[in-house]
Formats: sequence, structure tokens, C-alpha cells
Amino acid sequence: MDDTLPQSDMNPADLTGPSHLSCDILIHGAHLFTMQGSGVGYLADGAVAVRGTRIMGVGPTADLRARFEPAEIIDASHCAVLPGLIDAHMHTPLAIFRGVAQDVSQWMQLGLAAFNQHLTSSAAMAGSQLNVLEALKAGTTTFGDYARPFPGWAEFYLQVGVRARLAATINALPPGGMAGWQVGDLYPLDNEAGCRSLDAAIRFTRHWQGAGDGRISLMLGPQAPDMLTRDQLREVKRLAQMEGLMIHMHVAQGDREISQMTQRYGMRTPEFLRQLGYLDQQLLAVHLTEASEQEAELIAQSGTRMVLCSGSIGIIDGIVPPAHAFREAGGPVALGSDQACGNNCSNIFNEMKLTALFNKIRFRDPTVMPAWEVLRMATIEGAEAIGLGDQIGSLRVGKQADLIVVDLRALNLSPVITDPVRNIVPNLVYAASGREVKTVMVAGRLLVRNGQVLTADENAIRSEAQVQATALAKRVAADPIHRGLALMQAMKKGQL
Amino acid sequence: MDDTLPQSDMNPADLTGPSHLSCDILIHGAHLFTMQGSGVGYLADGAVAVRGTRIMGVGPTADLRARFEPAEIIDASHCAVLPGLIDAHMHTPLAIFRGVAQDVSQWMQLGLAAFNQHLTSSAAMAGSQLNVLEALKAGTTTFGDYARPFPGWAEFYLQVGVRARLAATINALPPGGMAGWQVGDLYPLDNEAGCRSLDAAIRFTRHWQGAGDGRISLMLGPQAPDMLTRDQLREVKRLAQMEGLMIHMHVAQGDREISQMTQRYGMRTPEFLRQLGYLDQQLLAVHLTEASEQEAELIAQSGTRMVLCSGSIGIIDGIVPPAHAFREAGGPVALGSDQACGNNCSNIFNEMKLTALFNKIRFRDPTVMPAWEVLRMATIEGAEAIGLGDQIGSLRVGKQADLIVVDLRALNLSPVITDPVRNIVPNLVYAASGREVKTVMVAGRLLVRNGQVLTADENAIRSEAQVQATALAKRVAADPIHRGLALMQAMKKGQL
Repeated sequence: MDDTLPQSDMNPADLTGPSHLSCDILIHGAHLFTMQGSGVGYLADGAVAVRGTRIMGVGPTADLRARFEPAEIIDASHCAVLPGLIDAHMHTPLAIFRGVAQDVSQWMQLGLAAFNQHLTSSAAMAGSQLNVLEALKAGTTTFGDYARPFPGWAEFYLQVGVRARLAATINALPPGGMAGWQVGDLYPLDNEAGCRSLDAAIRFTRHWQGAGDGRISLMLGPQAPDMLTRDQLREVKRLAQMEGLMIHMHVAQGDREISQMTQRYGMRTPEFLRQLGYLDQQLLAVHLTEASEQEAELIAQSGTRMVLCSGSIGIIDGIVPPAHAFREAGGPVALGSDQACGNNCSNIFNEMKLTALFNKIRFRDPTVMPAWEVLRMATIEGAEAIGLGDQIGSLRVGKQADLIVVDLRALNLSPVITDPVRNIVPNLVYAASGREVKTVMVAGRLLVRNGQVLTADENAIRSEAQVQATALAKRVAADPIHRGLALMQAMKKGQL
Repeated sequence: MDDTLPQSDMNPADLTGPSHLSCDILIHGAHLFTMQGSGVGYLADGAVAVRGTRIMGVGPTADLRARFEPAEIIDASHCAVLPGLIDAHMHTPLAIFRGVAQDVSQWMQLGLAAFNQHLTSSAAMAGSQLNVLEALKAGTTTFGDYARPFPGWAEFYLQVGVRARLAATINALPPGGMAGWQVGDLYPLDNEAGCRSLDAAIRFTRHWQGAGDGRISLMLGPQAPDMLTRDQLREVKRLAQMEGLMIHMHVAQGDREISQMTQRYGMRTPEFLRQLGYLDQQLLAVHLTEASEQEAELIAQSGTRMVLCSGSIGIIDGIVPPAHAFREAGGPVALGSDQACGNNCSNIFNEMKLTALFNKIRFRDPTVMPAWEVLRMATIEGAEAIGLGDQIGSLRVGKQADLIVVDLRALNLSPVITDPVRNIVPNLVYAASGREVKTVMVAGRLLVRNGQVLTADENAIRSEAQVQATALAKRVAADPIHRGLALMQAMKKGQL
């Protein structure tokens, strides 16, 4: 990839144009992190010119002020400007039961399933909208959302104006899902349910692909290798090849899955997927929780891309997945927040920090995964992992104008030091909370200004989420299934 | 400790008083986490009555509204109210060079020392004030600050109105500190410098002990067992016994220290301190980075208390200290943010989250250090660790009125679910950033309201910190010592 950093990044076409080019917005005076080149592509006193959905110019403020006649100027003095953050793996509807299943073993069966069973379409929509706004305010501009489609899901992304990379869940789980299954039992797979699920996903995918001037794009979403039949997995791969779609799949996501695969096929997930022809650059493999370093290396060498959900896997499993080995073997890694019932928040600043820290701890080495590397995973490397590296992830001429402005005058990001070493990237990764994001732009449109969402009614969405959550919790409480929740003991002991 | 949770916590004296007792402030309608009992002491729709510096009543809103006639009412509907958070170990002046030494080996020598050598009193004060406000806004009410005294240090704590538990650094390091030392060499110790340092600390301690109606209290601060002579350590212990002071000391804080101790005394730190008579409940031992689980257990069994600085030790060393073993052996553990040049931020919400997650990872077990336990470490258990368990750390009648109000309507803390399981504590620990803290009270006085600091000028403090940091960085850049900074390579490669 030719991603070098010119002093002033100019379209050849510009050279023959008038002395002042018109543009919609000029953001200037910034500590600019273009993410061009192999580092963070820093420019002191930098500027970005935007016209329509795209970046027209990137360079020193003085240069761009001389070249462009902007309709609007945004002063980013004392701010960092960087590409919008990419959350490559989310289940936004599940935010409706944020925080109900922490600190437990067997999170899926003993924490999540009882709530999941009572999830309605309205609750899913309310949770999704809440989660999208939460993440947007913390600087997420691209949403790798993964769900069984429900009315309003994609429509809300269109309305808010962010970029979405959606995957409609495909599985062959019988109606009722996983509730009531005993741990260790081989799941029943329901071929007919799997076909219905696949058909619905395909219809959804074809309907939404490319909507919103391309802001909405789709992947195929077979849930996990243990949740579809082998034939259905083959059919998904055939469709992906035929329609040129990536496959977004949970891979080696827990000892539960490995046990299913070993029981059903006599082999671990990575070998199963290799034999099935799944390991190539069409695959976005999420988690790899239970993959060994060797398995991670082999998967990376196949061209497969990875999503690392540090917060979620830390809370749910107490595990640091082998993303370091995956990257060392040349595979690109994106970050994901997964879901708020396992991770409690969707915030890529949080994921950057946890990723850097967890990996230092895994290797007992403070030099592992330095700040600039995780910032790349949240931007340009993440974009490459989800197959959008040519459109987003760095600030360069011709790319989509997805960017965020972060106020460095926040006390926790102060003071700014630029020489002899610069402290901005370490502070963005280790000190920022996401609340320092003041402005968010996607495809040239301002979605957040001065910390306020412009394209949706935050108060209405929060209120609706509370109404839906209260109703959902009431349904769970009325269902005897709740007695099996792992956290009922903690409630009795006054620990919640 | 008798810390049970009555339905309505009432002074016996109240029973004989008038039917309506006057109080200054009544906070009501809250999700109240009293931290009484062995869990989190939750009360739905709870209230706290405050008169002067103390808590007069804790109970259901209806009860307290019937009993008290408040001068002012604070409506805490949709909020969590909990004891003020305790940051038991900080070096606030070092915030002036926040974020200049991350992702490096030998943080102290190759990251910190060059900046530390150019730290002036004015820079120290500017850094300290910045750090105090940052932490206060994130809900910290008690500051275990540790520094070589500089003009204005304690005065600022008096002004802002928080509670401070100060330790004046005592060491026998020669003038010039550690800059230029080769890693692995035995440090020279300077007996005379040590005596001057001890004298100054004693004078400072006696002068400030009990100031601000007891809000300022002191500990003795021998920096580390490898940084004083054995005779000076004996003298510090003698003084501590004579004056009834606790000793706040870094213990087993790195392989560097262990190497010094082994070279100088032929034994590791814990055995050295045992032989010296240091291991008892006067000692607040910070870090224990390099202590084994067995050493941690032995130290805990001696009555010693511990401070765990998860973020700092994670970033600096990539290590999870043995706090779990320490607690299992019965020792109380407080949380600390250490310093912003190693941890980048001072925020006990951050420390709670990292502590829970790091320990799950250390033991590959999601049930280790659940949310309620780390919330106790940040409140009542932390208070006990620093010797203030009878005054702060829980909301109960007679204790100091140190409390915070957290807005649960923040998107990342929404929705609130109370039945069949309650999600508030998990969300406070795993999702809150600290920016959701709306109101902070210390000793009955409101210091933060609606997120704004009332007792200091935030803008002026931030500006002065920037001025001081720029000047300090210029001094470092002009000193050839900066060429040895580990991060100079990252600067050259465009990674910062």
C-alpha cells in the first residue's frame, strides 16, 4: 500500500484549477494524525479540506488556507484531529441489557440466555439506537454491527449518518436458542431453521448493500462454525464468492465452541475451517479466544483478517486473545467492543487502552503493543481488516471524510508536550475516555458538534431504552428461567 | 468491624430530639450504595442527611424526609450515590509531564529521569493542581499524595477542600537523583542527604498534621527500602511509633529494587523488611510488583496494608501485582493511580475497571475480583487500608460526609435494571469513565456541582500547567540527557 506522507497532499487535478478551490469545510490548526505512512502521520498545525463526502486536501494550515475557499471553517486549535474510529464487531441490540451478566462463568448460558430469550424487536431497536449513539459520541464512525435483522436496524444507521458494515446473523440453532442447554452437551442443529435464517440474511444483504451512498455495506454473518451445519457453511462460502462479500464470523470463541467442534467433527476450529476452505482474505475472524499462538499465525498467514474484542473477552473469559501473534504473522487486526451485556460499553478509546495493556500483561513486557499500534488498529489497520482500507482509516485526499476532533484541553489530556517527545498519542490511548471527542464527521457530514449528536434525539432514545429495558427485565423476572441466572446469588448477598 | 446495614440508620441521640431535625443538605431519591455490610449496602430510593462535616442520617427517602428539615435538597433521582473514592497512592506533581514515557523498558531511568531532573517547584505545583482537579472531577475525594514537599502543595488541598493523606518523600539519593545511573549498578546512598530529607519530612509532617479540621493528615514516606540506608529506615520506624504515624512506602516495586536489595543485603525486600520490623499494620506497602504470591500472603498476614496501582504497573511493567493473594490472606487493599507520566490519568473508575480485568486475566477466570469487590477497594476497604476506616469509606451516621453523585442517565450507564439482577455496580465498574460524576461532596461541603469544580479555577490551572510544561520540556530538550530517552526512536519513526 502506497500510503506515504507528503508535506501537502494534493490532487494532481488541483494543480490546473483556480488559485482558490471551493470546499465545504476546512478544519485547521490541529494536531493532525493522518495515519498515513507506517506510523501515525503527525502534522503540527495541520488542516483538512472537505467537499461533499470526500477529503480534498490534507496539509499544513497555511497551505490549505491559501488553496481553499471554505464555506465553513472549524478551528481545531488545541485539538487532535484523526480518522474516525472503527468498531469492527458489535451486537448493538444487546445494549438493552447492559451489565446484567458480569463476573460469572458460562456467561452465554448462565448470564445472557435468559435475557436474550425475552428480547423483542422493539427492545432490540431501542438497545441498538442507544448503543450507536453511545459509540458515536465516543468517536466511532464505522459500525461493524452483527444481528438478526429487526425492523429499523439499518434505517437508523441511515438516519444518524454513520458508516455501517452490517452482518445479518445466520445460524441453525433451534427456536429458543441456547437457553436450557446443559454445558458440554452437543447442541442440536436444525437444518430447516438454518435455511430460513440463511434466506432471510441473503434478502437483507441484497436489499441494503450500498445504501446511503455506500455508507451501508454488508458482510455475510454465519454466527460460528459450531452453530451452522457443515453444508450450510459451504453454502455461505459459495454465496460469498459469488456475490463478492466478506464473511464475518465468530471463530474459536470459547472452550464451549472447541468442545462442540471436537465432539462433532473430531478437530479444533482452525483445522476444520482450513479443510472447509474458509481461511482466506474473505474471512473476518472474530475473537480467536481459544486459538493458540500457532493457530493464530496459521490463520493470519492464510490472508484471514481478525477482530480483537479486548474488553469483552477480558470480562467474559479472563483471556487475552492471540492478536499479537496474528499481527506478527502479518494479519491485520481491527478492534471491536462486542456487546454491552459482556463489555458494558462500546467505546474504542476503551478498547485501545485495554488492548495495549492486556497484551503488555500477556507478555509481561511494557513495549508490546505501544500506543501508536493500537491507534492504527482503531483506524487504518482496522479499515484494512474490514475491507474498507481504500475508503477510510486515514486522512488522505480522495478518501471519505470520516474524522473526529478531540479536545486536548480536557484536564486528563493536559498538558500537551511536543518536544523532545510528543505525548498526544500515549494520552489518547491511555488517558482519554472518549468524552473528549467534540466533533464527529462521517462522509463529510457533521454528526456530532460540541459533544451533541445532531442527527438523532438522544433524550428520546435513552428514555425509550429505559422503557424497553424495564419491560424486558419484568418478562425475565416472571420467567422461572431467571432462577438459574449466575448473578442471583450475588443479588442475595447484597453484592449488586 | 460492625458495619451492618439497618433499614434506617439513626443516631440514638436523634430519638430524643425534636420530630424534625435540621440538617444542611438532604440528598434523596438515589440508588444508594452505602458500602455498609459485607457487600455494597444498596438502598433503592435512598437518602443521606448531612450536617456540618458529618452524615446525620442514611435511609429510605421517605424516612429521612419525615425526620429532617434540610436547608438544601439535592434530587438524586436517576443517580447513584456512593462514598467518595479513595486514591491511596499518587504523585500529583508528575502530572506536569503526563504521557512522556509510555511503552518503554526501564521507565524510571530511560523515560522519567530526564524530565524529573528538570522539575521545578512551580512546575510541580502546576502539575499537582492539574492532577488534583482531574481526579476530583472523576469522583476522588481522598488523595494519598506522595512527594518531596514544595510550596503550595498542602495549601492547595486546603483550598480545594478535598481530603489529603500526604507523605513527604524521604530518601538518601544523592543530588541529581537517578539520571545517568546504569541499570544494574548498585546505587550510591548519601547518608547526609538522607538526614536532610528526613528532617524536612518531619518538619512538614508536624506542621500539617490535622490541618483543615483534620482533612489533611500525614504519613511518613520513606521512598523505598533500596533508597534509604538501613539506619535511616530504622529511624523512620522509630519516629512512626513515637508519633503514631503510618508509613507509606514503595515495596518490591520492580526488578531494579530487588536487584539492589539482593546486592546490598543479600536478601529480597520482604525478608529484609521482616527482619527490620517493618511488617505490621503501620505499613502501607505500595505496588508489591515483584512480590510472589507467597510473599504477598506473608506480608498480608503481618497486618500490613497494600495499595494496588493497576494502571501504572500495567503500563510501566506489564505486570499484575499479587493483590488477589494479599486479599485472600486477609489484607486490605486500596487502589492508587500512581502518576500521570506512568499511568496517564488519575481516575479511580479507571483503576477499578483495570483491577477487575487484570486479575481476571492473571487467573484466566472471569469470577475473580467481581465489580463489587473493586468498588469496596475504592471505598470502605481502601479507607481501612489507609487507616481512615472509622471516618470515611462508607455512608453511615457519624462518618464524614464524603460522597459522590453519579448520573446513571449517561448513555454508557443506561438503561438501569434493578430486577431480577441489578446492573448498576457492574456498569459503574466496567462502563463508567468518571465523567458521569455530577456532584462531589467532602466533609459536607460541595466541591463539584453539575460537573464543575466550585473551589478552584479550572481554566487558570490548566493554562498554568501548559505554560509550565512547555518551559520544562524546553529545558529537557536543551539538555543532552534527552538523547537517551527511550522514546526518541519512536519520535524519529513517526510513531508519536
